Amino acid sequence: MNAPTSGTEAKPVAYPHWEIDSIVADLRSLRVKSLENRNRGDRPPKLPSRKALIGILDGLSAALFPNRLGAPGLTEEGVDYFVGHTLFASLRSLHDQVLLELRFAAEAAGTNGNDPDREAAEISRHFAARLPQVRALLETDIAAAYQGDPAARTIDEVLVCYPGITAITYHRLAHALHRLGAPLVARIISDISHSATGIDIHPGAEIGDSFFIDHGTGVVIGETSIIGRRVRLYQAVTLGAKRFPADENGVLIKGNARHPIVEDDVVIYAGATILGRVTIGCGSTIGGNVWLTRSVPPGSNVTQAQTRSEVFDAGAGI
Amino acid sequence: MNAPTSGTEAKPVAYPHWEIDSIVADLRSLRVKSLENRNRGDRPPKLPSRKALIGILDGLSAALFPNRLGAPGLTEEGVDYFVGHTLFASLRSLHDQVLLELRFAAEAAGTNGNDPDREAAEISRHFAARLPQVRALLETDIAAAYQGDPAARTIDEVLVCYPGITAITYHRLAHALHRLGAPLVARIISDISHSATGIDIHPGAEIGDSFFIDHGTGVVIGETSIIGRRVRLYQAVTLGAKRFPADENGVLIKGNARHPIVEDDVVIYAGATILGRVTIGCGSTIGGNVWLTRSVPPGSNVTQAQTRSEVFDAGAGI
Amino acid sequence: MNAPTSGTEAKPVAYPHWEIDSIVADLRSLRVKSLENRNRGDRPPKLPSRKALIGILDGLSAALFPNRLGAPGLTEEGVDYFVGHTLFASLRSLHDQVLLELRFAAEAAGTNGNDPDREAAEISRHFAARLPQVRALLETDIAAAYQGDPAARTIDEVLVCYPGITAITYHRLAHALHRLGAPLVARIISDISHSATGIDIHPGAEIGDSFFIDHGTGVVIGETSIIGRRVRLYQAVTLGAKRFPADENGVLIKGNARHPIVEDDVVIYAGATILGRVTIGCGSTIGGNVWLTRSVPPGSNVTQAQTRSEVFDAGAGI
Amino acid sequence: MNAPTSGTEAKPVAYPHWEIDSIVADLRSLRVKSLENRNRGDRPPKLPSRKALIGILDGLSAALFPNRLGAPGLTEEGVDYFVGHTLFASLRSLHDQVLLELRFAAEAAGTNGNDPDREAAEISRHFAARLPQVRALLETDIAAAYQGDPAARTIDEVLVCYPGITAITYHRLAHALHRLGAPLVARIISDISHSATGIDIHPGAEIGDSFFIDHGTGVVIGETSIIGRRVRLYQAVTLGAKRFPADENGVLIKGNARHPIVEDDVVIYAGATILGRVTIGCGSTIGGNVWLTRSVPPGSNVTQAQTRSEVFDAGAGI
Amino acid sequence: MNAPTSGTEAKPVAYPHWEIDSIVADLRSLRVKSLENRNRGDRPPKLPSRKALIGILDGLSAALFPNRLGAPGLTEEGVDYFVGHTLFASLRSLHDQVLLELRFAAEAAGTNGNDPDREAAEISRHFAARLPQVRALLETDIAAAYQGDPAARTIDEVLVCYPGITAITYHRLAHALHRLGAPLVARIISDISHSATGIDIHPGAEIGDSFFIDHGTGVVIGETSIIGRRVRLYQAVTLGAKRFPADENGVLIKGNARHPIVEDDVVIYAGATILGRVTIGCGSTIGGNVWLTRSVPPGSNVTQAQTRSEVFDAGAGI
Amino acid sequence: MNAPTSGTEAKPVAYPHWEIDSIVADLRSLRVKSLENRNRGDRPPKLPSRKALIGILDGLSAALFPNRLGAPGLTEEGVDYFVGHTLFASLRSLHDQVLLELRFAAEAAGTNGNDPDREAAEISRHFAARLPQVRALLETDIAAAYQGDPAARTIDEVLVCYPGITAITYHRLAHALHRLGAPLVARIISDISHSATGIDIHPGAEIGDSFFIDHGTGVVIGETSIIGRRVRLYQAVTLGAKRFPADENGVLIKGNARHPIVEDDVVIYAGATILGRVTIGCGSTIGGNVWLTRSVPPGSNVTQAQTRSEVFDAGAGI
Repeated sequence: MNAPTSGTEAKPVAYPHWEIDSIVADLRSLRVKSLENRNRGDRPPKLPSRKALIGILDGLSAALFPNRLGAPGLTEEGVDYFVGHTLFASLRSLHDQVLLELRFAAEAAGTNGNDPDREAAEISRHFAARLPQVRALLETDIAAAYQGDPAARTIDEVLVCYPGITAITYHRLAHALHRLGAPLVARIISDISHSATGIDIHPGAEIGDSFFIDHGTGVVIGETSIIGRRVRLYQAVTLGAKRFPADENGVLIKGNARHPIVEDDVVIYAGATILGRVTIGCGSTIGGNVWLTRSVPPGSNVTQAQTRSEVFDAGAGI
Repeated sequence: MNAPTSGTEAKPVAYPHWEIDSIVADLRSLRVKSLENRNRGDRPPKLPSRKALIGILDGLSAALFPNRLGAPGLTEEGVDYFVGHTLFASLRSLHDQVLLELRFAAEAAGTNGNDPDREAAEISRHFAARLPQVRALLETDIAAAYQGDPAARTIDEVLVCYPGITAITYHRLAHALHRLGAPLVARIISDISHSATGIDIHPGAEIGDSFFIDHGTGVVIGETSIIGRRVRLYQAVTLGAKRFPADENGVLIKGNARHPIVEDDVVIYAGATILGRVTIGCGSTIGGNVWLTRSVPPGSNVTQAQTRSEVFDAGAGI
Repeated sequence: MNAPTSGTEAKPVAYPHWEIDSIVADLRSLRVKSLENRNRGDRPPKLPSRKALIGILDGLSAALFPNRLGAPGLTEEGVDYFVGHTLFASLRSLHDQVLLELRFAAEAAGTNGNDPDREAAEISRHFAARLPQVRALLETDIAAAYQGDPAARTIDEVLVCYPGITAITYHRLAHALHRLGAPLVARIISDISHSATGIDIHPGAEIGDSFFIDHGTGVVIGETSIIGRRVRLYQAVTLGAKRFPADENGVLIKGNARHPIVEDDVVIYAGATILGRVTIGCGSTIGGNVWLTRSVPPGSNVTQAQTRSEVFDAGAGI
Repeated sequence: MNAPTSGTEAKPVAYPHWEIDSIVADLRSLRVKSLENRNRGDRPPKLPSRKALIGILDGLSAALFPNRLGAPGLTEEGVDYFVGHTLFASLRSLHDQVLLELRFAAEAAGTNGNDPDREAAEISRHFAARLPQVRALLETDIAAAYQGDPAARTIDEVLVCYPGITAITYHRLAHALHRLGAPLVARIISDISHSATGIDIHPGAEIGDSFFIDHGTGVVIGETSIIGRRVRLYQAVTLGAKRFPADENGVLIKGNARHPIVEDDVVIYAGATILGRVTIGCGSTIGGNVWLTRSVPPGSNVTQAQTRSEVFDAGAGI
Repeated sequence: MNAPTSGTEAKPVAYPHWEIDSIVADLRSLRVKSLENRNRGDRPPKLPSRKALIGILDGLSAALFPNRLGAPGLTEEGVDYFVGHTLFASLRSLHDQVLLELRFAAEAAGTNGNDPDREAAEISRHFAARLPQVRALLETDIAAAYQGDPAARTIDEVLVCYPGITAITYHRLAHALHRLGAPLVARIISDISHSATGIDIHPGAEIGDSFFIDHGTGVVIGETSIIGRRVRLYQAVTLGAKRFPADENGVLIKGNARHPIVEDDVVIYAGATILGRVTIGCGSTIGGNVWLTRSVPPGSNVTQAQTRSEVFDAGAGI
Repeated sequence: MNAPTSGTEAKPVAYPHWEIDSIVADLRSLRVKSLENRNRGDRPPKLPSRKALIGILDGLSAALFPNRLGAPGLTEEGVDYFVGHTLFASLRSLHDQVLLELRFAAEAAGTNGNDPDREAAEISRHFAARLPQVRALLETDIAAAYQGDPAARTIDEVLVCYPGITAITYHRLAHALHRLGAPLVARIISDISHSATGIDIHPGAEIGDSFFIDHGTGVVIGETSIIGRRVRLYQAVTLGAKRFPADENGVLIKGNARHPIVEDDVVIYAGATILGRVTIGCGSTIGGNVWLTRSVPPGSNVTQAQTRSEVFDAGAGI
């Protein structure tokens, strides 16, 4: 029998009246008040776009590693055209985003002396020139990941599977922009990376070659951190600030050196927390879950106190 | 020379026979058995859609902050039309999702007394009316983030770059829906937020104004948590339950108050774990990685025991 | 008055010259050098595609749970056609990805004896045959999540809201592929899961039925872990390796058993770290933040030492 | 030199004030007036969607010819699942569109006796049952095209390249819906076909098997046309009405038989115009550009008068 | 048996070397030569975008008829927000396109006196103000279509099914832009309409109210045509130019009045061709396929000579 | 008051049972029968894809005219990379489509001698080499359109607004493929062009430089037509075959020369029909609606007989 599976009468949904006029008016007055609080009577200029920057990161990654992250089906004849075209489109779009940041900053600062267009051109040109160096550094990072993880089978697996590689790739790009004078664009890039990988590296952090983060979720690396060469980190490691000094008005002082210096060849295991402008001497090993707020000399091996951790209550079950 | 780069013969892939008929039959019998186990002979009604809710969250965010998160290129003349239209479309879609939840719940409960359509209208109307208040609260959260992070340069940077702001925005919307009677829609929203930010706030948690989570990955805030005003949290903080009491049949008792109360002006540093229905008195500071299962009075400063954490084994290397 | 809101002259952006020719040449020489380092003079074969695998995972999930994760609006008449068609399309696409891995591996190994096409057919056929068993296991996982979380209201809520369920679903699929001989495809799947859920389970790990991870962000489960039945984990738990033995050339030895064995009915609370090839006896409970590097007998109840954790400094404030 | 290619200052565009408030108000009052003119004080119900119907036509075409118009890569194992799933999804969507038409018609008519839901079910069921017959008819149409065009190389080329095949496919589907009681859905389908092919066949026209339209642009076939078997038409042929009788109020009488009857085995060459309820006897040939308003007996061969057409004015040029 | 359906070895396609370097160089030199021929040494400015204008037409149509062509699911509360927002977005985008045309024209003309930004603002403002009048005219066109076609069942069917309505809607918008000074944008709109409907109306043509084109494919209406009120046209009607006078250099004289004037209440049947600056007196009827190159007085009834058209050759068959 | 606007109960639609199992079975048996009729027991190989070819045409058009049809925002630095990359991607995709055609043809012919991969490489290479010549020819076509239409204001307007330019662009590409041995791919391209422009040019037709079709809807140019240099056509012109000779079995003889030869500098006005292998001598003018089936000498001026066309019946009205 072909009868309908139910005898109910289907009628369209009846929507209520949501008083949108009133909500729109309330939201408008909140917006106006918010702008007034910031002494800005008019609508602010446009900010750089997170969505555009996601596209730019995809483009730059593809240009840096065309055979692995680029368009499928590239042959030897097509690869340089692909790289050149992708670079061109990505740089043009990046230039636009940097220009948005500079105009925004100029208006916020109320300064007239700047020339955002000229500055944006300088920044995008210098950034472009630095890309081969970024690629060379990333080669060292990939090699470090391959050598540092017994589960890694091939170099290529590392490039496509390891969140730590994505995080360091985006960081190296963001860091270049941060130094060249586009800190907001750099910051959005680092948040894109954070959202994709769970690894939060401030674009201000300086990181040497052959850097490897395994697993990575929960890693936080602060703005003024300095990390040497051949450093290895595991998940949930924090390189943070110990305290935030405020000025006489209680306003936080921004920008002072307040995060650790990690020298060459240091390994920091999962969950370790290192706070303040301390120095971890070269070749040191910091054990899992260690909490460290002072400097340690080169070659240190820091672990948790053995007595601390476990109380057996065998047989108790739950 | 223009010869093909390889002399191999290209032929299409030969797929095996996968015995799909047999797999389809097996999966069907597993579905039927699964429904029987739950005493439901027939196909269950549709659940709310995660994908639709992602769109709704984008819409509501854009309506709340049209200049920052809305369509690019809005001018003063267009902004209220944008807000009104976006609200309308988002509320209509939200109404549909709430209706799906209510129908699902009504069928699951087998109750006939309910009127899902009327309830959905009530919920979507009250939710709409609460939006200006949500926006006002979010202003305080943004201000708190700006004031609390020395790396923050501008208020606008906070809104577009900080996962903690996304998490509290989605939470304030989810919490409103949770209280109005749409707990499943609220729960899906909190999972969307969790996936995007690594911050897991149950929609039942009550959170006061000027709330700030920095970095945020790994933060977990339980269902019955109560958080006061001007509270600041760092990554990997847990506000959890100590134990889950079960009834005489071993079934967990659901819904009882089992998570911490955090009073006003508390700061909790990275990795701290606070479990159970304890109270953190106002103005307290809880240090990084602290493990806390009892209440502390106002003004407490709780840190790990100094002796615990490090064993130096200088020179050992790795 | 209708005058334009500003008297400025709008002109198109003037882009700088980025010297793309030179960057393209530099990147090319870096690529060539990189291939030479790996003794590969020519362009490497294509790798499996992360994007394709995301689509495959969506398809397989929909085929396993068509009423909850499949196309909206399925009726009894349509559901088997949906399942069959979705399976077919997903298996074909998976077959293609496995074939890419096998060709890549064959070329990397320089072996001629293999027949990637035959192997791919074997793998995709056996994988298909295993799907009903995967679905049956997932039923037990969902039931465990429902029973183990007092905040869970319905079975269906668990399926659509819990990242732990996504993680175990993807893991059970990845594990099958890992065992059948497609470790790279399996690894990419586990990274997709990691990115979506913050939970990092290596596809090599063996996990019994009724497995539940709550919250989940930061969980890491290593390649050679073995987990029994009815095991429950919370966020930030690590089942890791204690050390990585190297051979006489300093190259890490890959593949040896180096992660924990967790027996049936074990609960491991948030932040606990268990390292090395140790055994957690059945029925044990491992407390939050515990650091454990040796085996414990069945029925153990391991918690942090009480004296360790807190130093009160009441009234100090910040 | 790397200087910007232009020294102009780039500033964002300054948009004028468009007085949108006033335009919105004017358009609203026009809408209200328009509804009043049609004695409809309230907003009309929703019409079927052109966009949805385009998707439905794609789906039905793919189900009818899965190897040629369906998903790429189907194998023998997958084809019936593809057909079944595509049919299911297309029929469900078609059902929705028919339901919209019936509700619209019921409200327009002000009748309460109808049951749109029951009617929609009847229509979609009978339509589904007719699909194999439609496919069988289309086989004859494709064969006729192949045999009738010396430029056709293969049967398959005909199916993918000939607009006349698209037009008759869509017409046979639209005609079934027209007869079953969904004339508006049928009419939208015929307009979709018209827009894609330049061939305008009213869904009411009855057309026998083995029908072929070559080139096709500009062909118009009126609502009450009846076309026999094995008929062949060329571009710009019109089967139209001679005049439109009006009633005593000057309103056109709708629905009466006013278009030609074309019997079996007739060929009508490009540009011929046949108007009114005339009969073209079986086996007749109507020459290019002929203008015909009366019946012709079987076996007629109608061409333009030879004397009519050309005046030579050799050497005049232009 | 589960053996693969074929034993062939699948290998990837081997692409030839296409000598792209050489083709790119050749195309470049052709571009340079082409610019030189037009005395333009540098790259020309950007033209308006066809794709953008398709979006603008969709937006304006939706704003004019929100209940029929707008977003699905609009309610009374939402409709004005939808109209306002859609207008705003469409006008802003149209403004951008007009600005591109004006800049292009200014550069082509080499004139410095113009101010493209000011002109674009004037054009978009006046265009916006004219929209309610366009909607009022379209109401008369829709009513004319309904009254003039015995196959039309409802007013709404006309709006969604008739290509003639699409063509006149787009024409009325294009004509307004043509008159306001954006002839290239207007021309692209008319080509979009031509491609969708087969009806080619030059944006310069002036057309009165209650205009109806039935079927429409092949209709051509020239640039300087003037059409009165209540005129009805059928498919393949041409209102064209008789000859194109050239100046002493053989260059066509552009812009002079060279197309027909059609007065009120004229009907022109399918295939009629009217050429030159002739006048069709009000109330006249022009029969199908008539070829007319001189004026006719009001009330004329022009048909083809009866003797002309048919030569019967009964029984000849083919 | 905020009560819902209607008191109706909304319930989901109840779909009927469509007996899909039975329809699927019927369609399968029709497919099997259809293949048997063509002596093909197994599933036919894949045909070239219309959708892929649409993308290829967009790519090739953009590579030929990068400043007008390419990506927006190209600068001098980026244009050659854009052209090279777009060419590469388009040629690779075209190669794939040609390969599909050749494999299909090889299987249909049952021949084993062919080597589709080698042939596809030959075809795509020769096609690539011909592109600069195609661009040079198109320059002459664009110039002819500009000079031939008094409504054309600029050369650029012609390129973006004239369907005749699209048609000749696609034809010149299709013709090259037709000659090189990919007639089915060529035929699909000509149908794509036909659908977009209403102009139907068989890819076999040979067309000289400086060719212009104005308006174009309804133009049909047959397979063996030969058109000289500087020819101009208007809408609805047919260059067709007079009759189709059949062999002794009644099967049409395919491929013989049966369409007109149009010599240099001929103009053919709207609606003219020229049939058979006749020659229109150079410099001739063929008037509107002329019906011509014999050759005319150079310099002819052919118009319709003056007496033919009009019968005045002034004052009759309708």
